[in-house]
Amino acid sequence: MQAGSNHWTLWMRRALQLAALAEGQTSPNPLVGAVVLDAQGVLAGEGFHAKAGQAHAEVGALAQAGERAKGGTIIVTLEPCCHQGRTPPCSEAVIQAGIQRVVVALKDPDPRVAGGGIQRLRDAGLEVITGVLEEEAAQQNRAFVHRVQTGRPWGLLKWAMSLDGRTALTNGESQWISSPPARAWVHQLRAGCDAVIVGGGTVRADNPLLTSRGARSPEPLRVVLSRSLDLPTQAQLWDTSLVPTLLAYGPGCADRALPQGPESLELLASEPLDLLQVLAERGCNRVLWECGPALAAAALQQGCVQELAVVIAPKLLGGTLARTPLGDLGFTEMDKVMALSDLHAQRLGRDLLLEQRLI
Amino acid sequence: MQAGSNHWTLWMRRALQLAALAEGQTSPNPLVGAVVLDAQGVLAGEGFHAKAGQAHAEVGALAQAGERAKGGTIIVTLEPCCHQGRTPPCSEAVIQAGIQRVVVALKDPDPRVAGGGIQRLRDAGLEVITGVLEEEAAQQNRAFVHRVQTGRPWGLLKWAMSLDGRTALTNGESQWISSPPARAWVHQLRAGCDAVIVGGGTVRADNPLLTSRGARSPEPLRVVLSRSLDLPTQAQLWDTSLVPTLLAYGPGCADRALPQGPESLELLASEPLDLLQVLAERGCNRVLWECGPALAAAALQQGCVQELAVVIAPKLLGGTLARTPLGDLGFTEMDKVMALSDLHAQRLGRDLLLEQRLI
Repeated sequence: MQAGSNHWTLWMRRALQLAALAEGQTSPNPLVGAVVLDAQGVLAGEGFHAKAGQAHAEVGALAQAGERAKGGTIIVTLEPCCHQGRTPPCSEAVIQAGIQRVVVALKDPDPRVAGGGIQRLRDAGLEVITGVLEEEAAQQNRAFVHRVQTGRPWGLLKWAMSLDGRTALTNGESQWISSPPARAWVHQLRAGCDAVIVGGGTVRADNPLLTSRGARSPEPLRVVLSRSLDLPTQAQLWDTSLVPTLLAYGPGCADRALPQGPESLELLASEPLDLLQVLAERGCNRVLWECGPALAAAALQQGCVQELAVVIAPKLLGGTLARTPLGDLGFTEMDKVMALSDLHAQRLGRDLLLEQRLI
Repeated sequence: MQAGSNHWTLWMRRALQLAALAEGQTSPNPLVGAVVLDAQGVLAGEGFHAKAGQAHAEVGALAQAGERAKGGTIIVTLEPCCHQGRTPPCSEAVIQAGIQRVVVALKDPDPRVAGGGIQRLRDAGLEVITGVLEEEAAQQNRAFVHRVQTGRPWGLLKWAMSLDGRTALTNGESQWISSPPARAWVHQLRAGCDAVIVGGGTVRADNPLLTSRGARSPEPLRVVLSRSLDLPTQAQLWDTSLVPTLLAYGPGCADRALPQGPESLELLASEPLDLLQVLAERGCNRVLWECGPALAAAALQQGCVQELAVVIAPKLLGGTLARTPLGDLGFTEMDKVMALSDLHAQRLGRDLLLEQRLI
């Protein structure tokens, strides 16, 4: 069978769709989808990586294809691995299945792979086509790639504000600025993250639950990063019977009583960067910052935020001293401020959602 | 000729397009467009009201149609007037031209007309069809209708802010938050307004020019509403050689020196509402508030703002004490805050423009 690059694009799009089925579920592993075609180019098997420790996408798709994989093609969103992890290397499985051609979107940034899987396949005589829908695949796995390259999870900062940029009234009242559809969307957003982070101020002011309301199982880890450990004794986050909570704090708080329930962790410093290194070690690819202005500003300044999601409600709150999304960033010149990618807007009920990257 | 309502809708859309040609130019008069069809339903004349004191739309369209108006139809966006103003009543001109049928979008809210024009036409034996594209016509003339009904111009409040709701850095620096396309759009926005209003703080901080950069002739009246008359002696607004400036202030400022150049006006109180009554008397249908947070909040609280235009730049400024769009509005409960119509978003270069009404 001869086929142009457009042909592989169509199948790769299907493989990306398969990979997306496990969005938020695979950490610390990437999202991967795979499609196997037989020697005549007919669909023979599909697979995706559902969860760390479970079969890789290629293995599932090859198993489905069985003997039909012989002389066939596998289309896979990420370079097949060549190292023994919790499961055997996929490059060997591909070779043993008798596949003749491998179409890959993105090279694996994991230094244990990084082109080694492709090389192994070529050495075994297979044709390897790379870079098909590479950008889309990099976008889909941006959190994994970022964590592998930097040692820190991809950070998403989210807030909801009125059109005049307020996140609370002057008296601190903040429930609710956004509409029910926007709040349901936040639950979905949490389901795509491995941890949700707030500061002590948010615990004191809002007593949040911070779950995906069952949209993700297990729920993302709930994290409180506290400078002072000045925390309420009762809080929804301290009830860890259903969902775990991690309480992280800096040195010098030894005399404060810790609330019952959460796992507690003393960091070298009570800073976003220190926390993220710990969360990366625990296998988090993507974390959601749902914090107040001071912690949000610190996370931004320490490079712990890669993406923003801002919900704007059609309301005016006013209030010179009313809470705003961000504390001090220290800028004194307009051309030095933090730049974002073009604002992308969509509706969430009556609210507007703006999503963008830091650039 | 027989024709369904859809037929008149198409011609009325043309009449609305004609009316829009004079956007921002007709105050204190409304925008009006008219189309004349001959007895066979063929286009015979078009007209629009270009400027107060000049011919009304109907007169222009009838003149163009000449003898062909006899037995024909006139489609007009606003009820023909029946009173002698600076020009004779249009209802008489329509009757005298031999028109048989009049199609009207919107009744004139002017108490001197208010259905009287339609009545006069019917009394003379003409068929009158009303309410065709009435909503569109009301939207087009919302400023005129509001001014006639309330005695105050329609108020549009505009600001540009960063995604985190800041209109300046902590040190007051605000040039430029928005991009050149957004600033060019502001010039166009001014061209559609009869006056542009700022407070003394904006004069001190930004020394603005506040013109349409030639997009409107004459330029809109520039207005400074000052409480304290604590104003710089030199400012671009004090140069009235090309564009007039009105300096309005409250009582109790008699000891302050007034800057040379602007027309000065002492109000009963230095409040938005007092200013707008004066501007309505001077023939303003639509004014643009381009002021700082305190005056913007006062204008909102006094019902002087009907519409908002917010430019959001893809930037983060931060700064706990950095300027925000609105000062105190006095709300203590979330369900009492000011509600806006659904946010309507469009791009202005790299910025986003959100437009909405107060509801």
